[in-house]
Amino acid sequence: MFKLKKQSKKSNSRLGVLSTAHGSIDTPFFMPIATKAAIKSMTVQEVKDLGAQIILSNTYHNYLKPGVDIIKKFGNLHNFMDSDLPLLTDSGGYQVFSLANLRKIKGDDIEFQSHIDGSKHILNPKKVVDIQVTLGSDIMMVLDECVGLPSTKKKATEALERTTRWAKISLEYKNKLNKKSADIKKQLMFAIVQGADFKDLRLRSAEELTAMEFDGFAVGGLAVGEPTKTMYQVLDYTVPALPEDKPRYLMGVGYPENIVEAVKRGIDMFDCVIPTREARHGKLYVRRKKGLGDGFYETINITNARFANDKTLLANGRFGKYSLAYMHHLFKTQETLGTRLATMNNISFYLDLMSDIRKAIKVRG
Amino acid sequence: MFKLKKQSKKSNSRLGVLSTAHGSIDTPFFMPIATKAAIKSMTVQEVKDLGAQIILSNTYHNYLKPGVDIIKKFGNLHNFMDSDLPLLTDSGGYQVFSLANLRKIKGDDIEFQSHIDGSKHILNPKKVVDIQVTLGSDIMMVLDECVGLPSTKKKATEALERTTRWAKISLEYKNKLNKKSADIKKQLMFAIVQGADFKDLRLRSAEELTAMEFDGFAVGGLAVGEPTKTMYQVLDYTVPALPEDKPRYLMGVGYPENIVEAVKRGIDMFDCVIPTREARHGKLYVRRKKGLGDGFYETINITNARFANDKTLLANGRFGKYSLAYMHHLFKTQETLGTRLATMNNISFYLDLMSDIRKAIKVRG
Repeated sequence: MFKLKKQSKKSNSRLGVLSTAHGSIDTPFFMPIATKAAIKSMTVQEVKDLGAQIILSNTYHNYLKPGVDIIKKFGNLHNFMDSDLPLLTDSGGYQVFSLANLRKIKGDDIEFQSHIDGSKHILNPKKVVDIQVTLGSDIMMVLDECVGLPSTKKKATEALERTTRWAKISLEYKNKLNKKSADIKKQLMFAIVQGADFKDLRLRSAEELTAMEFDGFAVGGLAVGEPTKTMYQVLDYTVPALPEDKPRYLMGVGYPENIVEAVKRGIDMFDCVIPTREARHGKLYVRRKKGLGDGFYETINITNARFANDKTLLANGRFGKYSLAYMHHLFKTQETLGTRLATMNNISFYLDLMSDIRKAIKVRG
Repeated sequence: MFKLKKQSKKSNSRLGVLSTAHGSIDTPFFMPIATKAAIKSMTVQEVKDLGAQIILSNTYHNYLKPGVDIIKKFGNLHNFMDSDLPLLTDSGGYQVFSLANLRKIKGDDIEFQSHIDGSKHILNPKKVVDIQVTLGSDIMMVLDECVGLPSTKKKATEALERTTRWAKISLEYKNKLNKKSADIKKQLMFAIVQGADFKDLRLRSAEELTAMEFDGFAVGGLAVGEPTKTMYQVLDYTVPALPEDKPRYLMGVGYPENIVEAVKRGIDMFDCVIPTREARHGKLYVRRKKGLGDGFYETINITNARFANDKTLLANGRFGKYSLAYMHHLFKTQETLGTRLATMNNISFYLDLMSDIRKAIKVRG
């Protein structure tokens, strides 16, 4: 359930509360990613302490490893990975179209080979719901087809039509399951708007999906290599086509400034691998100014020789008195503590950003 | 300063307290290793919370990276790595003889090339003291020459003689520095008994070194590939040649049963890479029984398929509700959280072992 708390008068940004089976979440929010049932180098308790309200995991990866049977033995993914935070699981649509090999679509079945060991598998809309029921996701995403950008209109149209059909199958199947289990009924289900960068297709996708009773709507198929301007344009015409009383999720986005801009356009939810992936490469996010305007942050490459002597404390000493010189040393000597501290730094940067965004909407309207 | 608190009547084991500039340490103890100024995947605060009283770092590695100039800017290694625990630094003798390339001894200089980048360096007894003064080591080790086993008597004799000469140079130099600085005076200095597995050489080394006023004595040159029986034999005749009122340190040892046996032979201090290195390979130490007799522990290889479904909690849930099945999953998917939790498990196993050993000496005499 989503409650809109405040609609900004200056932009389309808004404050809300999303209630899930594992607790309520203030919007707009960012989800740290636990792709394979683990956040890179951190515990769930640690990201919670940094301000995380919810984490994201991947249906595709959990389905392949450890597999549904093992998760089932533990009750749900929360228990398996020892998490008491709400959990959103993506549908595997994006992964099966980007990672898997020898992919074939037959009717509503996607046949593919695992990117890990080449084993053959089938996913379809109902199976993806079943897997997410087993995972115990607080928010499940419907199976969708995500096309890369640029895309032909023909390809984008086909993907849109398939996504709508699969969304309908998923929702109807979920509604059936709801009658059998109060726990399943509590699991929210979001649909995913596709349509590449064609305005008419995005509006059609939004219209078809919002005609159904989903708990929230995602904008998919962005952050797939298109210019930032294109992403913003798609949001400019897509978000207004989504209902005000449902949460809006921009999948896989993005850099801090993308998040700020997307919030202004009415987006409530984000996830992205950037903070954790860049941490592993020694790229640290550092706040430079108050506010969210130009130059409010910068990234530094901690492996750069200029940090070898730098006594500045990482994150103002929040995680211990670790200087940038020490971080530089850890990265130059491949000590895993370096990646861990860099990950904490970057995740906390993103979570603080969201907290600042919420404050800004609250205070400045 | 070392105070002997209790001498067992049943064995040569004993309880004591070793006072250092950064606090007192109950003996016998184990030192987690921070080779390159970082414990593998853990913070110092975390190993402290697990019961670590002191950590060990390496002169050779810190000298090469980050280098003495950088440590100097931070005051000492404690500040650089944000540690408030006492610190023992080995002399680099072992590393320069095992890791470095194109090693040549000219007089008291060891010329060598860095194993990292081939750069040329010289270490000698005084320089090693200087480096450890900069590191701010609570316990510094003198430069020694460690021969592998088996060794010819000639080679072992030469190494012994060099070690004695270097010990003398180191102590005299340190005594000079003591007069200049109260901080340096507080740094303890230990000598290292060599002599391979020749009884007469070990006794000669012990005699020569204990004639000098060191703060403690290490038994070096063991755990270098010899049979366990040989290690125990060397201890059987070497330890009684060391003074009762000084701490005794068995360098680089070992498996839990080696530690138990060495304590029985009168050893007070240990360090070893085993718990952290084996953690990275998925080998977990698990306590099986009370007491320290046969079969009191086992190791499990968490990557083994038999753990895929195992709901047993890692370390009885001490670090979170992480099952062995989850640990198996983390290792099979190369998630770094797995290494981190395995490292915590193994280090805590070793620290608990030492705590149990101390209790056993206290209670049973």
